[in-house]
Amino acid sequence: MIYRVSLASRTAKRTGRPEKWVGLGGRALTSAIIGAEVSPRVWPLGPGNKLVLAPGLLVNSGASSTGRLSVGAKSPLTGTIKESNVGGPSAQQLARLGVDAVIFEEPAERDQWLVARVSTEGVEVLPGDHLAGLGVYESVARLRDQFGDKVAVFAIGPAGEHRLTAASIGVTDADGVPARHAGRGGLGAVMGSLGLKAIVVDMTSAPAAASPADPEGLKAANRRFVEALRAHPVSGQSMPKYGTNALVSPINALAGLPTRNFSQGQFELAEQINGDALHDCIVERGGDTTHRCMPGCVIRCSNTYLDEAGREVTRGFEYESIVLLGADCGIGDLDAVAQLNYLCDDLGLDTMEIGVTLGVAMEAGVLAFGDAQAALALVAEVGQDTPLGRVVGQGAAVTGRVFGVAHVPVVKGQAMPAYDPRAFKGIGVTYATSTMGADHTAGNCLPGSALPDGTIPDPHSREHQVELSRYMQQLATTFDSLGLCWFTRGPILADNSLLTDILASQWGGEWTMDGLFAQARQTLGVELAFNRAAGFTPDDDRLPDYFSEEALAPEGHEFDISPEEMQHAIPVP
Amino acid sequence: MIYRVSLASRTAKRTGRPEKWVGLGGRALTSAIIGAEVSPRVWPLGPGNKLVLAPGLLVNSGASSTGRLSVGAKSPLTGTIKESNVGGPSAQQLARLGVDAVIFEEPAERDQWLVARVSTEGVEVLPGDHLAGLGVYESVARLRDQFGDKVAVFAIGPAGEHRLTAASIGVTDADGVPARHAGRGGLGAVMGSLGLKAIVVDMTSAPAAASPADPEGLKAANRRFVEALRAHPVSGQSMPKYGTNALVSPINALAGLPTRNFSQGQFELAEQINGDALHDCIVERGGDTTHRCMPGCVIRCSNTYLDEAGREVTRGFEYESIVLLGADCGIGDLDAVAQLNYLCDDLGLDTMEIGVTLGVAMEAGVLAFGDAQAALALVAEVGQDTPLGRVVGQGAAVTGRVFGVAHVPVVKGQAMPAYDPRAFKGIGVTYATSTMGADHTAGNCLPGSALPDGTIPDPHSREHQVELSRYMQQLATTFDSLGLCWFTRGPILADNSLLTDILASQWGGEWTMDGLFAQARQTLGVELAFNRAAGFTPDDDRLPDYFSEEALAPEGHEFDISPEEMQHAIPVP
Repeated sequence: MIYRVSLASRTAKRTGRPEKWVGLGGRALTSAIIGAEVSPRVWPLGPGNKLVLAPGLLVNSGASSTGRLSVGAKSPLTGTIKESNVGGPSAQQLARLGVDAVIFEEPAERDQWLVARVSTEGVEVLPGDHLAGLGVYESVARLRDQFGDKVAVFAIGPAGEHRLTAASIGVTDADGVPARHAGRGGLGAVMGSLGLKAIVVDMTSAPAAASPADPEGLKAANRRFVEALRAHPVSGQSMPKYGTNALVSPINALAGLPTRNFSQGQFELAEQINGDALHDCIVERGGDTTHRCMPGCVIRCSNTYLDEAGREVTRGFEYESIVLLGADCGIGDLDAVAQLNYLCDDLGLDTMEIGVTLGVAMEAGVLAFGDAQAALALVAEVGQDTPLGRVVGQGAAVTGRVFGVAHVPVVKGQAMPAYDPRAFKGIGVTYATSTMGADHTAGNCLPGSALPDGTIPDPHSREHQVELSRYMQQLATTFDSLGLCWFTRGPILADNSLLTDILASQWGGEWTMDGLFAQARQTLGVELAFNRAAGFTPDDDRLPDYFSEEALAPEGHEFDISPEEMQHAIPVP
Repeated sequence: MIYRVSLASRTAKRTGRPEKWVGLGGRALTSAIIGAEVSPRVWPLGPGNKLVLAPGLLVNSGASSTGRLSVGAKSPLTGTIKESNVGGPSAQQLARLGVDAVIFEEPAERDQWLVARVSTEGVEVLPGDHLAGLGVYESVARLRDQFGDKVAVFAIGPAGEHRLTAASIGVTDADGVPARHAGRGGLGAVMGSLGLKAIVVDMTSAPAAASPADPEGLKAANRRFVEALRAHPVSGQSMPKYGTNALVSPINALAGLPTRNFSQGQFELAEQINGDALHDCIVERGGDTTHRCMPGCVIRCSNTYLDEAGREVTRGFEYESIVLLGADCGIGDLDAVAQLNYLCDDLGLDTMEIGVTLGVAMEAGVLAFGDAQAALALVAEVGQDTPLGRVVGQGAAVTGRVFGVAHVPVVKGQAMPAYDPRAFKGIGVTYATSTMGADHTAGNCLPGSALPDGTIPDPHSREHQVELSRYMQQLATTFDSLGLCWFTRGPILADNSLLTDILASQWGGEWTMDGLFAQARQTLGVELAFNRAAGFTPDDDRLPDYFSEEALAPEGHEFDISPEEMQHAIPVP
């Protein structure tokens, strides 16, 4: 079932899922809807844009690590189509309510704030002016007071209200804490431009989920999947212990850890912010190193981070945020980085975009590399909506332009994630060619990633990187459409039947990886067509030139794959 | 002779003009040099860019209104190749020194300021740190103290020093007052990024100019040209009396005068800022309505504007500045607009870019439409280099992005001149398709402009506008290359021999308009090739969509020429 919610008229319509969208979930569905209903050239902050939520196709399956949600719109940060993917239980709750997608459209009158409540009664649009100006945390606290602590909540903070293009959408985790974020692409600004302060999902009186095609088969498939996840060294050992931050040490060792605005690939203080440092600090202070963002997940890569007095500072404190708010800003103090992380979460800002933005501002001399207090003050200005705060809140590309910075690590206006593309060339190919600007989740080619024939490209070499990115872009699109967490890919790639058995027993019919990839290419084709119609050309599919012209200290890697070669990474003709 | 000046080594080399550049002047020469020597994808504020000065080909002729100078670079505002054209005697002085072009390259060390002096002794590079932070007026006053009051001076103000992309280059007029500006494209920022605060041209001991091919013929041709200019109603009557500001009333009557950020085509206070109002005010206060920017010009369209006490406020107070700083900001008070004009000139800012930027900031609510004091304070912030000042100093596109404005009247990042393209469709075609972003001087299709067959398109109609723009783009390129003022075009189009006789007697050989247009197409071809290599595609050759979607009050004109049709306006294949 699809809800179509007009903020202007405060009404919602409920429709079935049209034939053409049957079998699509998550990113496949958000991109299909945006592609069909949003004119590619509209101003992303104007009335022509829409915001779409869609749970992945597997969310109802009860399988571990399958509860992810896709949020789609035309991005005000990049101008491209966008899918921003987020964990937490909200997708599971929407799915329990039988919701395939919610389409928010037709903005409210300016400076009127609304809350949408999705429940068994449908979607109500309620006044939200009492939340205006509040941070994400306080907004969620008040909404849980109002609607009960069983609800899942999406909320924007001041950044989204001010329609800033680094604005995220905060989403509650399994404890009702809004530490999960649909971070990338400025979708919080789209929500803000619709006048939508928050979305409350209440499944308290939902009937039992519809039966799967083969309940016994599903149970068995889920059991087998959980065993495989537990047996795999990444999803079974490293991630539960260290979380994503396990990556700091290997990425630093491979000399591609973005440091001081991507000017170095190794951070001399990496040991202060790496997986061990974080783990030990959390354990010592009594935090949780094995927190799950969504019910039922056995990987439990999240965490809670406490201060010395044992009070929670932040949670969901992950690799990308730690490196970009930390190393990329020359900050090696985990407590300071945690405060930055919390501040971004509370203001409703993408930690990645803001980390890179701070690095750019530091190169400009607006503040000094390593000055955590100045960084906190600068991010706080975003909440105050000062001119400088607006600049920073618009992200790295705008900040670089305003301050005249030579090195601005963005593609299509979006800040790069925490892998320098000179050292990790496959990831660089994905940054350049993805339909969404620099986005590692669009096709992450981490060291150790293998091609289907078993070849494992050397991340420092140009060999096979285009092929690897092309493959990973299809895989990522598949995972994003199924609602499947990327961290399950190890076991699934080793044995595809782990995935296809769940799909078959949940939905019936036959499922193959080839079929899933074919669907992924269709989705990518819709996205690419949108971008082409929006004015993007192959000439936009490139990294800033300096990545090919300036070697990365200390190992001297350069990005040496040409834009022409990279075109072959795009999985559609 | 060509000077090549390295700011890094503070040395200059003097060379002959290479074969390939013989016969080229002004824009033809600056674009040839930039096209040959600047890599199209370089960062315009980095070491790969160059700044080129070149007098037009006719500057030495002694003919009226032929003393214009071209300034070329890769624009940091648009990312395209750029030629910014300026009046005043500097081109004549360079030409008397035998200079075909000066190429400034290889930046000084950061925060070191230099002055280049061009004289019979060559080019010296001198310290300029004593001028750091000074406005254009004070910089010029000190340089005239230092080098004598016969010199012509180019200088940047704080805006250029801070490498802001709305920065202009101030140039002295015939009185040594720096009220002329190479305004468009942010070339002041290129000069700033080279560490070049000022250029002094001293021809005091120059030998007599080289003899023309046919001295008697040239005298006769010049006489005939002057008579024709005097006899023409525009160059002989309207321009000397009203200057360019004569246009306010007809453009307002035709409902295309940009008002309140291009939201209206008529300004209810137009009578307070039109040609009559300006003329009467100048006369009443004892200013000069018939000031010439360069020696020998019989059109004398410039002026000096005094305050009520008879003190000069500004000069070269022209249509574009008055409309964009006035009507487009809802300001109908000439005294206030004059103060804004002076402040821009002194800070070294393009009045057009800043006028449009203020209008955009007013739409955003940063200040109110019509609030002249707030506008003055906001422009003053550019000089103070505050974050807000930097935003404004980067121009309309950046300001619109930072403040989330729906209507940003720019093409390729450059603000539109003072003709709404919905009412003046040929000008709109030029904005969209010129090699330099929204620039009326790239091919102005003013009401009354005729095609070679005599057809005069109705500016409100889409008929013949593509053809007219295509024609005017070639004509403008021709004029820019000859150093010829655009205001001479009436007589010249009526009788081409007025121009070709001067060229033949000055340079020898046969000259035809066909030949000049062929050269213009070559120049445009160089420019287009540069832009294509810089990443611009035909998809960039368009106006913001709202000009086609939102009718212009009060007459309801819409821009209705498609991007595909407009491609035919580009005069090269």
